[in-house]
Amino acid sequence: MLAQADQHHPDLGAAMEHLLYSGGKRIRPAVALLTGSMLGGDQKRLITLGASIELLHTATLVHDDLIDGSLLRRGITTLNAQWSPAATVLTGDFIFARAAKLAAETDSVPVMRLFAETLATIVNGEITQMFTSKGLASKEDYLQRIHAKTASMFELSTAAAALLSPVDEFLVEEVRLFGYDIGMAFQIVDDVLDFTGEQTTVGKPVGSDLRQGLITLPALYYFESNPDDPDVSWVLSGKAYSDERMNKLVSSIRNSEAIERSLDEARTYVDCGLEILSRMVACEERDALVDLANYIVRRSM
Amino acid sequence: MLAQADQHHPDLGAAMEHLLYSGGKRIRPAVALLTGSMLGGDQKRLITLGASIELLHTATLVHDDLIDGSLLRRGITTLNAQWSPAATVLTGDFIFARAAKLAAETDSVPVMRLFAETLATIVNGEITQMFTSKGLASKEDYLQRIHAKTASMFELSTAAAALLSPVDEFLVEEVRLFGYDIGMAFQIVDDVLDFTGEQTTVGKPVGSDLRQGLITLPALYYFESNPDDPDVSWVLSGKAYSDERMNKLVSSIRNSEAIERSLDEARTYVDCGLEILSRMVACEERDALVDLANYIVRRSM
Repeated sequence: MLAQADQHHPDLGAAMEHLLYSGGKRIRPAVALLTGSMLGGDQKRLITLGASIELLHTATLVHDDLIDGSLLRRGITTLNAQWSPAATVLTGDFIFARAAKLAAETDSVPVMRLFAETLATIVNGEITQMFTSKGLASKEDYLQRIHAKTASMFELSTAAAALLSPVDEFLVEEVRLFGYDIGMAFQIVDDVLDFTGEQTTVGKPVGSDLRQGLITLPALYYFESNPDDPDVSWVLSGKAYSDERMNKLVSSIRNSEAIERSLDEARTYVDCGLEILSRMVACEERDALVDLANYIVRRSM
Repeated sequence: MLAQADQHHPDLGAAMEHLLYSGGKRIRPAVALLTGSMLGGDQKRLITLGASIELLHTATLVHDDLIDGSLLRRGITTLNAQWSPAATVLTGDFIFARAAKLAAETDSVPVMRLFAETLATIVNGEITQMFTSKGLASKEDYLQRIHAKTASMFELSTAAAALLSPVDEFLVEEVRLFGYDIGMAFQIVDDVLDFTGEQTTVGKPVGSDLRQGLITLPALYYFESNPDDPDVSWVLSGKAYSDERMNKLVSSIRNSEAIERSLDEARTYVDCGLEILSRMVACEERDALVDLANYIVRRSM
């Protein structure tokens, strides 16, 4: 990944180092490598795919942080906190270009198509979110949004890995669904952690999504069960922002059964994913994917 | 191209219409279609390639105009003149995604690789320009810059078209060079027109590049021949901007032999391109490419 900035402007190399050394779980490439290895795919092409997917993910984060004006990610300053908007836009574009180049180096046209479709899905999701008025979203809207934002890239990780493996279309579809399931669970748990996490761990204030007007599953469930909570009517009315009321609402959600209900939903997705894995031939990589899927919900405890 | 926004957020369709109906010469897809047809390439895949290249070009313009804060292009308002920076960044990303998808639909891995490499070249060129201090550039820097900015996409147009045609590597390289030659000529003529054009035709003030601190070939040649012109030392010193002095300098360049010298340089590139074409089998498409190459320099008169 780092080598992708070689022979280009040195500041691009510096940006790439900053972004890649800032951590991250690398869960998407791990999913791609394990899925492809489970299916007998070629290691070299799978590694290229993994790097391509992680860079695609990185590029979207660079533009997202710029758009949201986020100054910290994973406790480290974002690119836009140090660079001009112009340089940040271009650095994101450059990383997109290198991700696309690596995707092409898998030598698979179907992988390239899926890569390009996934990018369009992610961006379309962000635009839809941007142009949708804040306020009460339906659960359906929420699920669509987290599919575009997160699950689509997990689907890419598993389906593209399968496309690089000696398996038939049916299996490609099976592991694509597995990617969908763990991707949906991953984002739901992230949305729960936004309420239950410690500010020091998450790296942003508790309830930051809601504070920015973004209604996630725990909030949706809380609103549904507590229509008479005056803080709920207040937040949905879009009236003047009050830190005190917001802190109270975030704390109510954090201590409500909406958290457990959301985690149950995540567990259901993981269970569907595990069900798919159970139909695969037993091997070390399958066991590792089972662990990874379980880890996704365990993160929340 | 328009259909690429179907089944996505309606505002993306509106943006695509605005961008595509705002005109433009469509010279890059024309070059791709003619080159591929000359070489016996498949029409359907060439059309897909042409659409992919025009969308790639469009996406780079969307981000460029945002970065430069340009409010008009081709006499029509830019996207960033009407939309927020966030929506403009995402719309550019979406168009990149659709361009990549069309490139994948040519079903050629080498075309995909070239597509991704070209995007990286263009963005790297912009970043280099951004991080390079304004002031006197060398002719070598200038040529590198216009290669990244413009000629690289003409090379993509010709070389990718050849890759979709039943020809050998040698011919791919020949037509890539032809693309390079006409691309370099195209940008030099554009840079001349920035000085010699009428504001109403060009859609921006005469000498707009120099006014923004960008030194193009006519300016370079003028500076070289007139080191004692006090306006030259003034502009290179980076001292306080003065409209009056700038108007005088732009007018001096406009009326100097630097214009003709720049056009000679463009003509030399076109001649090299025509030389390559003369080695191709005679056909209607070759004649059309000869006309197109000649048109590139004729535009300046």
